[in-house]
Amino acid sequence: MKRVKVVDALVSTDYGKNITVMGWVRSHRSSKAVDFIALNDGSTIKNIQVVVSPEVMDAEQLKSITTGACIRATGTLVESQGAGQSVEVQAQEIEIYGLCPSDYPMQKKGQSFEYMRQYAHMRLRTNTFGAVFRIRHNMAIAVHRYFHEHGFYYFHTPIITASDAEGAGEMFQVTTLDLDRVAKSGTVEYEKDFFGKKTSLTVSGQLEGELGATALGAVYTFGPTFRAENSNTPRHLAEFWMIEPEVAFMEQEELMDLEEDFIKYCVNWALTNCKDDLEFLNNMIDKSLIETLESVVKESFVRLTYTEGIKILEEAVKAGRKFEFPVKGWGMDLSSEHERYLV
Amino acid sequence: MKRVKVVDALVSTDYGKNITVMGWVRSHRSSKAVDFIALNDGSTIKNIQVVVSPEVMDAEQLKSITTGACIRATGTLVESQGAGQSVEVQAQEIEIYGLCPSDYPMQKKGQSFEYMRQYAHMRLRTNTFGAVFRIRHNMAIAVHRYFHEHGFYYFHTPIITASDAEGAGEMFQVTTLDLDRVAKSGTVEYEKDFFGKKTSLTVSGQLEGELGATALGAVYTFGPTFRAENSNTPRHLAEFWMIEPEVAFMEQEELMDLEEDFIKYCVNWALTNCKDDLEFLNNMIDKSLIETLESVVKESFVRLTYTEGIKILEEAVKAGRKFEFPVKGWGMDLSSEHERYLV
Repeated sequence: MKRVKVVDALVSTDYGKNITVMGWVRSHRSSKAVDFIALNDGSTIKNIQVVVSPEVMDAEQLKSITTGACIRATGTLVESQGAGQSVEVQAQEIEIYGLCPSDYPMQKKGQSFEYMRQYAHMRLRTNTFGAVFRIRHNMAIAVHRYFHEHGFYYFHTPIITASDAEGAGEMFQVTTLDLDRVAKSGTVEYEKDFFGKKTSLTVSGQLEGELGATALGAVYTFGPTFRAENSNTPRHLAEFWMIEPEVAFMEQEELMDLEEDFIKYCVNWALTNCKDDLEFLNNMIDKSLIETLESVVKESFVRLTYTEGIKILEEAVKAGRKFEFPVKGWGMDLSSEHERYLV
Repeated sequence: MKRVKVVDALVSTDYGKNITVMGWVRSHRSSKAVDFIALNDGSTIKNIQVVVSPEVMDAEQLKSITTGACIRATGTLVESQGAGQSVEVQAQEIEIYGLCPSDYPMQKKGQSFEYMRQYAHMRLRTNTFGAVFRIRHNMAIAVHRYFHEHGFYYFHTPIITASDAEGAGEMFQVTTLDLDRVAKSGTVEYEKDFFGKKTSLTVSGQLEGELGATALGAVYTFGPTFRAENSNTPRHLAEFWMIEPEVAFMEQEELMDLEEDFIKYCVNWALTNCKDDLEFLNNMIDKSLIETLESVVKESFVRLTYTEGIKILEEAVKAGRKFEFPVKGWGMDLSSEHERYLV
């Protein structure tokens, strides 16, 4: 029987129909009469409840289906009796694809991020990482849809480059030279390297993006970017995906319109398409998350000049506001705490 | 006045209305009474014709607007008298943003790919590269739409990696070690490298993709991938963008359905959304292009086993077909010429 994804099964109203779901067990509990298996297949943060009566399966076998196990359940879709779920599956047949030992690291609840970090290959199966990756997917889709609908062309700029993009950051070197041989020979022969010269990982696609914009009119990049600074701040990543639009014939006012419209489009996409995942993160990680996102969509963005921004910061300092980096007045670069204060 | 993109102006029927177009001059010719400027802004392969009467502009200045120049033209949108174009702009005002010397390398017609290769920063402004990049954009959009509509999550796998993905190919090394210092010191101290070990550019996101699929159910990667083989065949690229779907709970027959449906969706997207660009490439590069693409969408893909494929190849050899790589019979790897023959 064709498998139904959990995300589709949960909104089905074909009560009495036989369906097949497949996934990984999130929890398994036994009552006197029946067993309840919460099954997740990654298509949604929500689980579907599979109800198993004793006659369906050998008791020992049924007991072996613990958190993390991978199974198929075929049975009747029925309206759920329990709270918080619309439907459940009254199992007629359970097939075990793989069991999971009791030391499976992603047990049901409440692991810390630090703990999960040790199991990078497993943490994707948790609610938190599942939510983050489904939202990340949706944000990428929103980015592509927005730019496509606005006449921008997606432009793949080089990852390996011999340009340093205006010194935007420290770079990783890319080479096919054998380092052991370099150490032995005592010389670096770049003429023997893959590209015949020193090359690095890109810190920005901007330079090529500008060439694209002055040919195709409007382009955007959305690809991996690299920084080799030995920095461990929460804002630093060695490897991250960056979006860089480049447009010909655009005035500053239009650019600000584009930026505001783009951000609102993406946030609105998340609110519309990632409701369950956002609600989970709102409950578990940040109680103000959805409220903040909704305000981004609703409010008009304030536009002010650099000069006005400096003035506001200077007035804040006068009124007693402390900043880690001093407000030095007109001509200074703004640090992120200054930008956050202005926002 | 707000700029109108050429792609929109060309389908407008607001005859008599004033519009502003901006772009780069593809050609400029003078007749006795008026001048004709073919203007392109990258939004489409088609140019819009700007008709300039002597009273609009100083004759010397007008003459200076040669191929490659960047201008704004404001004027009346009128139905075109000429063949092959729907509308033209009767200029009332021309503003020159930038002139272009007569040694501008992308003159109007017929440069070879080898010639254009020398001007990688300029060739994006040609019809051929414009068409290729607009189609490439549309293919990326089709890929994302297809997988999104089919419940796959876009999954960014690591670019810098310490894994060699089953030895899929030669790898570029990524390092922050100072190679001159390595040569001087005579040792490679990986413990001082950025990640404390030897790292390379990924040859495949498959390993991480499989982890994603067994958590989110269905994922796809679409990102840059690298091969360091010192190979100069037309099929080899040091850096390219690769698509890798990974799905849990999928049978072989469903996988083949997915592959066929995906390819047809993308090709159909190109035929629907890239008509002008495909027609240009069909006329200039490959007269069978559109016919081939249409047949991909129309025909059902033949499905056969490896054993059947080998049999067909062996029969072809018997019938006198020559292959560069010998057909060694069951157990052999197929080379691309064998695959092409089967298709």
